[in-house]
Amino acid sequence: MSVTAPAGFVAAGMACGIKPGGVPDLALLATEDGHPVPAAAVFTANRAPAAPVQVSRANLVTTGGRAAAVVVSSGNANAATGRPGLQVAKGMCDLAAGHLGCARDEVLVASTGLIGIPLPFEPLQTGIPRLVASRAPGAKAARAAAQAMMTTDTAIKQTLVEGPSFSVGGMAKGAAMLAPDLATMLAVLTTDADVSPADLHEALLGAVRDSFNSLSVDGCCSTNDTVVILASGRAGAAATGLGLMQAVGAACADLAEQMAVDAEGATRRVRVRVSGAATTDDAHRAARKVAESALVQCSMYGSDPYWGRVVSELGSAGVAFDPDRVRVAYGGIDVCRGGVACAHDTEAIATHLRGMVVELTADLGLAEGTAEMLTTDLGPGYISENMRTS
Amino acid sequence: MSVTAPAGFVAAGMACGIKPGGVPDLALLATEDGHPVPAAAVFTANRAPAAPVQVSRANLVTTGGRAAAVVVSSGNANAATGRPGLQVAKGMCDLAAGHLGCARDEVLVASTGLIGIPLPFEPLQTGIPRLVASRAPGAKAARAAAQAMMTTDTAIKQTLVEGPSFSVGGMAKGAAMLAPDLATMLAVLTTDADVSPADLHEALLGAVRDSFNSLSVDGCCSTNDTVVILASGRAGAAATGLGLMQAVGAACADLAEQMAVDAEGATRRVRVRVSGAATTDDAHRAARKVAESALVQCSMYGSDPYWGRVVSELGSAGVAFDPDRVRVAYGGIDVCRGGVACAHDTEAIATHLRGMVVELTADLGLAEGTAEMLTTDLGPGYISENMRTS
Repeated sequence: MSVTAPAGFVAAGMACGIKPGGVPDLALLATEDGHPVPAAAVFTANRAPAAPVQVSRANLVTTGGRAAAVVVSSGNANAATGRPGLQVAKGMCDLAAGHLGCARDEVLVASTGLIGIPLPFEPLQTGIPRLVASRAPGAKAARAAAQAMMTTDTAIKQTLVEGPSFSVGGMAKGAAMLAPDLATMLAVLTTDADVSPADLHEALLGAVRDSFNSLSVDGCCSTNDTVVILASGRAGAAATGLGLMQAVGAACADLAEQMAVDAEGATRRVRVRVSGAATTDDAHRAARKVAESALVQCSMYGSDPYWGRVVSELGSAGVAFDPDRVRVAYGGIDVCRGGVACAHDTEAIATHLRGMVVELTADLGLAEGTAEMLTTDLGPGYISENMRTS
Repeated sequence: MSVTAPAGFVAAGMACGIKPGGVPDLALLATEDGHPVPAAAVFTANRAPAAPVQVSRANLVTTGGRAAAVVVSSGNANAATGRPGLQVAKGMCDLAAGHLGCARDEVLVASTGLIGIPLPFEPLQTGIPRLVASRAPGAKAARAAAQAMMTTDTAIKQTLVEGPSFSVGGMAKGAAMLAPDLATMLAVLTTDADVSPADLHEALLGAVRDSFNSLSVDGCCSTNDTVVILASGRAGAAATGLGLMQAVGAACADLAEQMAVDAEGATRRVRVRVSGAATTDDAHRAARKVAESALVQCSMYGSDPYWGRVVSELGSAGVAFDPDRVRVAYGGIDVCRGGVACAHDTEAIATHLRGMVVELTADLGLAEGTAEMLTTDLGPGYISENMRTS
């Protein structure tokens, strides 16, 4: 169950010819009646945003945070494609709006794939009308849509979170920044909660901060990253801010976890927890520095309990740090206390480090700041996935 | 010719038993007569500095920038070793000073190797007296010293730069941040220029900024990085500031280049040049972001001309950026102009990307800021070198 589980939504997925060989490459999420509903989105912070990011951002401003549909294409990012790329992205909105019966500004678009290659309009021109015509409620249509978003993903990513009086559904593709040439992170969420565009936006911001923005594999930030949510209001009762943020956050966290599981070349996930930092901001920075360290990630691939690298990364994270107070643990077992090695059960550590999920904890011993990052190990698979685009 | 080429210096290198199997692990650079001369050093910015870094930094403050010798040990970093580690580092100074006939504060120390493992004092206690006794002028002693600094290095790194009226010699180990578990970057430089401690420090700072600090392979910053220079003054004529900085800079750049050549797992060097940035600072930041991008580095390993990743990294570097103005070139051949693909000689690009040195240029088209970074490609060798420490 996914984006069509909350009441009021339909979906579709199909192949239109952007990818060769009839591989699905075009997805739709729309309101059942084609009418716009409150919508919010978070886009990449990259200063070279792809054409669909520029168009969707502008559309949400124009409509004051309302949308009737999201069209996603995969196989070509429509990024670094200049003015012609903008025309294609706008054309996608026009086509979908025409067949859905809404205004063009009420359609959001997202694309994922290679950067710098013109996205041909022909496949979209014939594909989008068929895509809209095939939209349907139910799990099968949702699954087709989620599948059509995939690039290097090896598994479909869907989620459903039941709130107190509403639900949140979602589908996503990509592996955050795992293999960004083909791996923009896209997520489309739905809810039947009754919520204003402003409250929806606030809930999404909080949810993304604690999920997708805490997932990092190689520190790269795509030109196309997009997370969008539409709220049908069908559940009636007004959603409280906190409840909605929690439910959307749980949906995003589930999708982020699925992305880490599916990271190309990765053999295990690593949950980096920093505590005892001087501030929450310091904790976030330190956790990110450790999580994005190629050396720490290589250690995790080799199941090597070499905590010296962790201390070295913490020391160069640019945060308040006292080497004599740091404590490092794997799987809850201390390997370093007071900045120096401490006796530990090496067998238990070795077993933990060979598992699918490694818990790496660093306590800075200064104050109460805590943060968490989800990353993966770095193995030869990452290189073979990323050394060539074709 | 290396650290003993400038007049007034002797060197030594030997095995003392820190490393198993009689592999050289102890090096000395000293003034010929054991008297202190002007000295300067640049240390790691890591907030968990190793014991020898703490001791050497304090010694230079105590002496007001004078030193008679540098003792380098390899095989154990003496980092994250607490108070006992500090005692060992101080003991190294005491021993060398006693046998050289200088004050203990006039000896600087540096160590490289694994973090978090106590450095035993016994091998040093018997080794340092023998090391001092074997010191000698000439190329053979310099070579032995350079060899004893090595860890994962596959080649000895030495340099000699002739200034207008003086010379600068140097030896180094490591690969900057290439394989930091064993690969602290250490460099010991000498000059016979007659210069004050303050001028020497200024010359070294400028030289390091444009060489070692512009070399980055994985963005990691060691607990032990140390660059030190001693000036015997034997060349007589007072060195002008600029001439000395240039000569020291050339020596550092040569050693940095040798480190990149020797980077484990790397198959080629990549020189990243950013021009047209709004400021010099922006140019440095953008060049570093591209050079440290695992994705760009993977592309370089695969000889893949995928410039989209370069634009994406520039866009997320946090600098002033207009995607419609960016130009990207490999080997001087434009592949992207005005932010979009441009026609180019694909054969010529392919040939360039298969070479040992790739020239990657990005012009931001905004103003006059320029900067350069030296990095390597990222291949499976990096992972096999770094996945396990033992």
